[in-house]
Amino acid sequence: SEVKKIAVISGDGIGPEVVAEALKVLKRTEELFGYSFETEHALFGGIAIDQKGTPLPQETLDICKNADAVLLGAVGGPQWDNNPKELRPETGLLAIRKELGLFSNLRPAVVFDCLKDASTLKPEVLEGTDLMVVRELTGGIYFGEKFRRQGDQGEEAVDTCVYNVTEVERIIRQGFEIAQKRRKKLASVDKANVLETSRLWREVANRLAPEYPDVELEHILVDNCAMQLLRRPSSFDVIVTENMFGDILSDEAAMLTGSIGMLSSASMGEGSYGLYEPVHGSAPDIAGQELANPIATILSLALMFRITFGYEDAASAIEEAVAEVLNAGHRTSDIAVDKSKAIGTSQMGDLILAAM
Amino acid sequence: SEVKKIAVISGDGIGPEVVAEALKVLKRTEELFGYSFETEHALFGGIAIDQKGTPLPQETLDICKNADAVLLGAVGGPQWDNNPKELRPETGLLAIRKELGLFSNLRPAVVFDCLKDASTLKPEVLEGTDLMVVRELTGGIYFGEKFRRQGDQGEEAVDTCVYNVTEVERIIRQGFEIAQKRRKKLASVDKANVLETSRLWREVANRLAPEYPDVELEHILVDNCAMQLLRRPSSFDVIVTENMFGDILSDEAAMLTGSIGMLSSASMGEGSYGLYEPVHGSAPDIAGQELANPIATILSLALMFRITFGYEDAASAIEEAVAEVLNAGHRTSDIAVDKSKAIGTSQMGDLILAAM
Ligand SMILES: CC(C)[C@H](C(=O)O)[C@@H](O)C(=O)O
Ligand SMILES: CC(C)[C@H](C(=O)O)[C@@H](O)C(=O)O
Repeated sequence: SEVKKIAVISGDGIGPEVVAEALKVLKRTEELFGYSFETEHALFGGIAIDQKGTPLPQETLDICKNADAVLLGAVGGPQWDNNPKELRPETGLLAIRKELGLFSNLRPAVVFDCLKDASTLKPEVLEGTDLMVVRELTGGIYFGEKFRRQGDQGEEAVDTCVYNVTEVERIIRQGFEIAQKRRKKLASVDKANVLETSRLWREVANRLAPEYPDVELEHILVDNCAMQLLRRPSSFDVIVTENMFGDILSDEAAMLTGSIGMLSSASMGEGSYGLYEPVHGSAPDIAGQELANPIATILSLALMFRITFGYEDAASAIEEAVAEVLNAGHRTSDIAVDKSKAIGTSQMGDLILAAM
Repeated sequence: SEVKKIAVISGDGIGPEVVAEALKVLKRTEELFGYSFETEHALFGGIAIDQKGTPLPQETLDICKNADAVLLGAVGGPQWDNNPKELRPETGLLAIRKELGLFSNLRPAVVFDCLKDASTLKPEVLEGTDLMVVRELTGGIYFGEKFRRQGDQGEEAVDTCVYNVTEVERIIRQGFEIAQKRRKKLASVDKANVLETSRLWREVANRLAPEYPDVELEHILVDNCAMQLLRRPSSFDVIVTENMFGDILSDEAAMLTGSIGMLSSASMGEGSYGLYEPVHGSAPDIAGQELANPIATILSLALMFRITFGYEDAASAIEEAVAEVLNAGHRTSDIAVDKSKAIGTSQMGDLILAAM
């Protein structure tokens, strides 16, 4: 089959370690299934600030644009936190989303059996929780005009939240389409009793609904959603929402599963192009010590195989191998009950390879 | 002592029933402690839309402005949900906050012993949770310019989030002052890695911090806060945040206590003026059936006595009476384990009166 190009961004902290394990899995996939991949590494985030003076060098952008998909480890660390805005890793994150047109962030929140006790929620409440947050990623208050000005009451700061009907339509369609492939329930989250952008959002959702008659659409206010996620997490299937609400709710949803260290995510552009990354951060405190858990990154690769390339066989093989290794009781220290029996980052990768 | 004026807004749904019980408690406070109150009823919300054609009639505003404090039941109901914006109860809510200058919303999230099993969180995680969300209530994206316009990509909706330094300063001072009277920890929540208003927020918090050297200030990003509330709720003391984030986080915090039906809140203006109301809504489905729990409204009255009037004796007497009645095992149906033994709204009020 055709050679697929993958841009690989290791990033900062534990990023390089977890990406290295995912690349071992990538190689094994080629051997086992006959797919061919060409990988190209690119600098991004803190390391790019240090080496190139900008979190998102043009060369990195070119490598990503030239690829079919991007695999990202993690970016950020305390040493860049107090930098001016242009020299902060998160500025690079926002820029790469915009430049690559990654308008849709898919954040599945599932409960791993071996981790359900790690949740602060009661097991009976968590039972059956398997939801997906579809977050708009290139619009809203994140990308609107921002400035300071002098007002009557002293200095003022302004952020602008803008959505046009095209942006809203494409993300809500994503929500409906994903719901169609799942349990056919879509919760559209807004604050239509206060915000104009939310009223537009709700109008578009209602206008599109008849095109997806098999999906049950519910409108839910963001404050209520924050509550219902806690009260009845298993009742949600797909949640579609705007950028800022999605940032908050997807993190809440991920945390309540107890499995946050194992969750993967996809940021999709037009067509099948996507950037795949673990939900967890760069954890600089444990970097380079063989303590990081590579599973979320390996599962992000599986997600790439499924969504961007349609390699369902490879995706399933990876997911099953991960499940097998976990079922056999192997744990990295973050998820080990008995830390003295924990295995290291590369050992975990090797076990998953062996199980494939 | 001086006669204190209280504006009483019963509102919609169960509002009138729960307010009636609080007024019985008010009367008992006069008898027991020698305080005198003058109450004046005012129409607000759905009932005002029906009877006066607007959710916030001028007369209601005058009554409130003329009073020392306002007691509010609850507003809203499905019959007004599809009205045009000017004829919706929540439009009245936003208007009354702005008109009365209620810039600070205090939402204590505490766990009632008899309700800790009602939480979806594990009891050991909830243990010791007692936090207060201080939400800015008259600024930000709720009150900024909102409009539609034609853009290149079709219709656009715009919301504007504005904060000036004076607004930010007064609410952050509130946060510090409340923390000083509690466990001396203040979590200031923002999204300073993305929003200009958040950067102003953080600057002001840092500038004021040296004036409150006894308070430990922590900055936390809103997405992280949504997670940490779930992971370590008992570690929070006071959370101060802007309007939209406060809407979401205060509901999340209330829900995780499991005691949401029993929580009270205060919305404060300049000086000691305040509006007090239960956190729960108007619950139209159970209105008029003696099923409502009046405790949150009665505790809102206690909060009024403490905060606006400085009647600590009366406030404590009410709170102790509520605790005594609950400890004796009396429950309205919303909090009863054995629903067949549940008591009615006015019975609960009578028992609290008797216990005072
Ligand atoms: C780092 C930050 C800008 C980013 C966001 O808010 O989008 C992060 O929280 C995320 O969710 O990917
Ligand atoms: C009804 C709505 C406008 C209101 C708000 O968002 O402020 C409510 O959710 C609240 O928290 O009091």
